[in-house]
Amino acid sequence: MALLSLLTPFLAVILCLVAGFVLLKSRGTGTTLTSTDKTNTTSKVDFKPWVDQDLQDNTEITAKEDESDDWDGSHEEEGLAHVPYSPQRYPEKTMLERSRDFYSVMNQRRSVRFISPEPVPREVIDNVIHTAGTAPSGAHTEPWTFVVVSAPDMKHKIRLIVEEEEEMNYRQRMGDKWVQDLAKLKTNWIKDYLDIAPYLILIFKQTFGILPNGKKKTHYYNEISVSISCGILLAALQNVGLVTVTSTPLNCGPQLRLLLQRPANEKLLMLLPVGFPASDATVPDLNRKPVTDIAVYI
Amino acid sequence: MALLSLLTPFLAVILCLVAGFVLLKSRGTGTTLTSTDKTNTTSKVDFKPWVDQDLQDNTEITAKEDESDDWDGSHEEEGLAHVPYSPQRYPEKTMLERSRDFYSVMNQRRSVRFISPEPVPREVIDNVIHTAGTAPSGAHTEPWTFVVVSAPDMKHKIRLIVEEEEEMNYRQRMGDKWVQDLAKLKTNWIKDYLDIAPYLILIFKQTFGILPNGKKKTHYYNEISVSISCGILLAALQNVGLVTVTSTPLNCGPQLRLLLQRPANEKLLMLLPVGFPASDATVPDLNRKPVTDIAVYI
Repeated sequence: MALLSLLTPFLAVILCLVAGFVLLKSRGTGTTLTSTDKTNTTSKVDFKPWVDQDLQDNTEITAKEDESDDWDGSHEEEGLAHVPYSPQRYPEKTMLERSRDFYSVMNQRRSVRFISPEPVPREVIDNVIHTAGTAPSGAHTEPWTFVVVSAPDMKHKIRLIVEEEEEMNYRQRMGDKWVQDLAKLKTNWIKDYLDIAPYLILIFKQTFGILPNGKKKTHYYNEISVSISCGILLAALQNVGLVTVTSTPLNCGPQLRLLLQRPANEKLLMLLPVGFPASDATVPDLNRKPVTDIAVYI
Repeated sequence: MALLSLLTPFLAVILCLVAGFVLLKSRGTGTTLTSTDKTNTTSKVDFKPWVDQDLQDNTEITAKEDESDDWDGSHEEEGLAHVPYSPQRYPEKTMLERSRDFYSVMNQRRSVRFISPEPVPREVIDNVIHTAGTAPSGAHTEPWTFVVVSAPDMKHKIRLIVEEEEEMNYRQRMGDKWVQDLAKLKTNWIKDYLDIAPYLILIFKQTFGILPNGKKKTHYYNEISVSISCGILLAALQNVGLVTVTSTPLNCGPQLRLLLQRPANEKLLMLLPVGFPASDATVPDLNRKPVTDIAVYI
């Protein structure tokens, strides 16, 4: 007993160190929060009303080790009938032409912030959304919702939410660079294309689904799946001569979700203003990496 | 002092509780690890050599609040010249036709696991990779590397690594469903298409870049950017009549990265076997959601 009471101080010190170390460690993981999580943290601090529902955002769920890694129904395959598959086949010459033509069309794509107000045929937008919906998805969950906004008042409400957050972001930036030209910065948080573009496409990822029995259905790889779908959507837009700028509005997700009355299992992944380019549209003079910098052949 | 030595046992007990609680807490966060992180955790347990380099995987970095949210160079815009942009414009009738045609081509896409060994023109694959490289990316970082494997011995090494992990996954699955038909399961972890397909495209995301001064350059939204690029790649393959199956090999990333001699800032995101469909190819009899389930118009 004497020995014990003699040792306990040392024991206490060791435990202090252990507790301190583990605390630090668990703090460390906090730095890998996703932007959506950040939103919630930020918003939480500001006591904003919509946060509670969104606190449970699990941005990306990857398959558990007992899940297959092939996409599009390999999970359900055992239960599903298989049907023959013989898609269109092109002669070699045609393949080469089609691969060159598609590259030259896609290589003209640029992120464009100067969008014309002129109307775009609704059927074209419908076909573009249909096309995005052909993307593969983890376990064929199709975890995407495309909200297509053309109503001027709704577009303006979206603009106000996005610009408010953007201005906060830029003013924070001003904090450390106070000498910067305010006017120049201003052009960065003013997004009039959100009013001008005939369509805004807001792409939501469904972080989980709801089963008939009301239980949650995990959507594995939902963010990757929806991003792949967005890539196909960008190809479909470029294919018809429409432009957009890929944006991932910071911190606006929960507010826009509520504005658009989307359920809490849906998180905003991207916002794409869509239309024809303005006649005086310009783009930053960027180059793409040469193929030798992006491809390795073995 | 007497008081202290009297209190220390209680102090020790309290610290035990604190340490225990925090340990549990940090375990808890472990369940939200990404598959790559899982890999490392798993591998760490098995004392595998390649883990240390990969422990620092930050799968997805979203922009800090002082970053702009527009993609493709909006960060650098202030420093970059702007050039006029006037892409191809199609008459309305042509737009409608192109949108319908592209949808009908993409709507024929399926994930195909039965791939023909017949050769595919190398130039077609080159153009497909070029096309994938036209994707937008956060701050124009172009954080992708496409490793195109056609060498039979390398394809076989990749197959061995993937099947080893897959078999482990399925055997774990067997654990709870021991009555299941082993033969049926076996077909799930045997991936002979990894030997048979003329090309394997392994898509790596660069989680960070290296600046000229040797410092790390953060690649914001790298996983979303590379997934968008993968969507454009899938469109390019479908456009020329080639097939693939989107797969995200579980736990194999670090081994495949070392096998293919990719640096530690690159993490495997997807593995796509590419070729013509086998003459007797079948696909699970899946349907896609009707557009009314994926689109909302406001």
